[in-house]
Amino acid sequence: MIDQTKLPNNLIFVKCTKHVEVANAIKKLVIRGAPAICVAGAYGLSLAALESKATTVNELIHDLENAQKTLFETRPTAVNLSWGLEKVMNSAKTCCTINDIKKSVIRTANKLANDDVATNMAIGKYGSELLDDNEIVMTHCNAGALATVSYGTALGVIRSAKDLGKKVKVIATETRPIQQGSRLTAFELKHDGIEVDVIPDTAAGYVMGNKLINKVIVGADRILSTGHVFNKIGTYQLAILAKYHEIPFYVAAPLSTFDLNNKPDDIIIEQRNANEVTSIGNQKTAPDDIGVINPAFDITPPYLISGIITEKGIIIQPYDASIKKLFD
Amino acid sequence: MIDQTKLPNNLIFVKCTKHVEVANAIKKLVIRGAPAICVAGAYGLSLAALESKATTVNELIHDLENAQKTLFETRPTAVNLSWGLEKVMNSAKTCCTINDIKKSVIRTANKLANDDVATNMAIGKYGSELLDDNEIVMTHCNAGALATVSYGTALGVIRSAKDLGKKVKVIATETRPIQQGSRLTAFELKHDGIEVDVIPDTAAGYVMGNKLINKVIVGADRILSTGHVFNKIGTYQLAILAKYHEIPFYVAAPLSTFDLNNKPDDIIIEQRNANEVTSIGNQKTAPDDIGVINPAFDITPPYLISGIITEKGIIIQPYDASIKKLFD
Repeated sequence: MIDQTKLPNNLIFVKCTKHVEVANAIKKLVIRGAPAICVAGAYGLSLAALESKATTVNELIHDLENAQKTLFETRPTAVNLSWGLEKVMNSAKTCCTINDIKKSVIRTANKLANDDVATNMAIGKYGSELLDDNEIVMTHCNAGALATVSYGTALGVIRSAKDLGKKVKVIATETRPIQQGSRLTAFELKHDGIEVDVIPDTAAGYVMGNKLINKVIVGADRILSTGHVFNKIGTYQLAILAKYHEIPFYVAAPLSTFDLNNKPDDIIIEQRNANEVTSIGNQKTAPDDIGVINPAFDITPPYLISGIITEKGIIIQPYDASIKKLFD
Repeated sequence: MIDQTKLPNNLIFVKCTKHVEVANAIKKLVIRGAPAICVAGAYGLSLAALESKATTVNELIHDLENAQKTLFETRPTAVNLSWGLEKVMNSAKTCCTINDIKKSVIRTANKLANDDVATNMAIGKYGSELLDDNEIVMTHCNAGALATVSYGTALGVIRSAKDLGKKVKVIATETRPIQQGSRLTAFELKHDGIEVDVIPDTAAGYVMGNKLINKVIVGADRILSTGHVFNKIGTYQLAILAKYHEIPFYVAAPLSTFDLNNKPDDIIIEQRNANEVTSIGNQKTAPDDIGVINPAFDITPPYLISGIITEKGIIIQPYDASIKKLFD
């Protein structure tokens, strides 16, 4: 995997040979993005299967369950991770021999990886119909190739529109505190020759008020059956600002992002380390021992969302009905 | 003056002996904050008067006018600077001898410095009446002691409430790209023993939505007769977010911040250097040669502002009428 903490300065690939290394990579944001960590988690279980010294099926399943727990706890909010781990575990549990389990786990991980690309292409295709020629799209964080196996969700829409011959420009919010916008989104769009401007997160309202964008498209870490979207901190306020300026606000995410079992209050928002806010690299940007509020995610309510772009099409309000239909 | 670019890591004082040094200090944000650069500009003219080799009154006035231009062009948006420079120039122009001009220029600069402290105390006194015991106030950028001669405008309100025995806590937005919130506001509040939490700018909506604050109070760089407020980039979106969450949004600023002559479209918003957004210190946070939009200020329209706290009291909507009355 690409070490995303080293971007945009260094393009470094990391090889994991143990599931604990995958778990640490997810925890330290070496790899991030809900669909990407779903597939990373699945390959983490594959490594756990290969690592296991189990001599019975039950022992192997037990080892895999322990690895599943280790991998899941790295990023509890992104539902794709637990969805992918569950898929792999289910494939393992249908097998009768150790050898079959190991093969099945790897086969399922490979399938999840391949499916992710196809899913993103489909999301891109549906989403691209929303974009007119010469439009400018604001995006937040990174819902691109780096957040998936490739192509991306929100940025897949941009790529797909470009592939259709439309001229599309992106305005990427920096996305403090981890700066996935300036570090990752700007990096991968520039790499693909798509025009992109970076703005500080403080300039989103200015950009909208000055009519510099036509649409907002973001990814998602978890979408509830009510249409509440958990995504990178700052998404919620962008949705409010978009509503205020009458700019359409879209979420692009695969079905694996949907959590049909929980309500908004059931989900605990990860609070991340204070030093993400008080420093950047070795550069200290706040006094010592200062209080910090650093939530990883926020919740955007359904009435702020113009549509959710999935691999099965674009759904709109009322989301409880349209999401139910999506899974029928 | 304190070198604010070195905070919070190093408290370093800079001594300027030439007006060009003052101009450079303002341009490089060694000193920033509308009221602070007003007084710095006035002392810059004092240095210019002392530097001048003029042998006639006309020559000296000419030298001072050149220095005024140099100082003014450092930060064209903050109206206090041009207001202060004008005050000093007017005092110079009433004098008949070189010696009198030099004395008058220095006397006026001293008076502006002393007046600023008294003004901030008055703003603080009026503003403190808005705060109840145990309230939590969000502020943006730094409208504190570091932005003025001392005490501050928005933070003067906090200090005044504390002096009245009220327990007040502050949530400071980081304020990218220059991070005046985490670097300066957190620094000076911690220094004064006032509780403060820093948040990334992306968490403002989260904090409001979770009812973690009671009020927003910010400073201003320029207020028009219509009540349009020019302030640090990000102020506009905080005002929209506050309105959406029904949280009162106040601006604290002295009368010297008011510009009764211009309309919103007359004012050009400074676009600052791209590297403020693409790096922090030596740490690069975006790919090379990426497009950047980096406006220094934005404009908050009057209908988003619950009140403007001045040294003559708190004014409310309709601002065209209440501002007119303020200057009667």
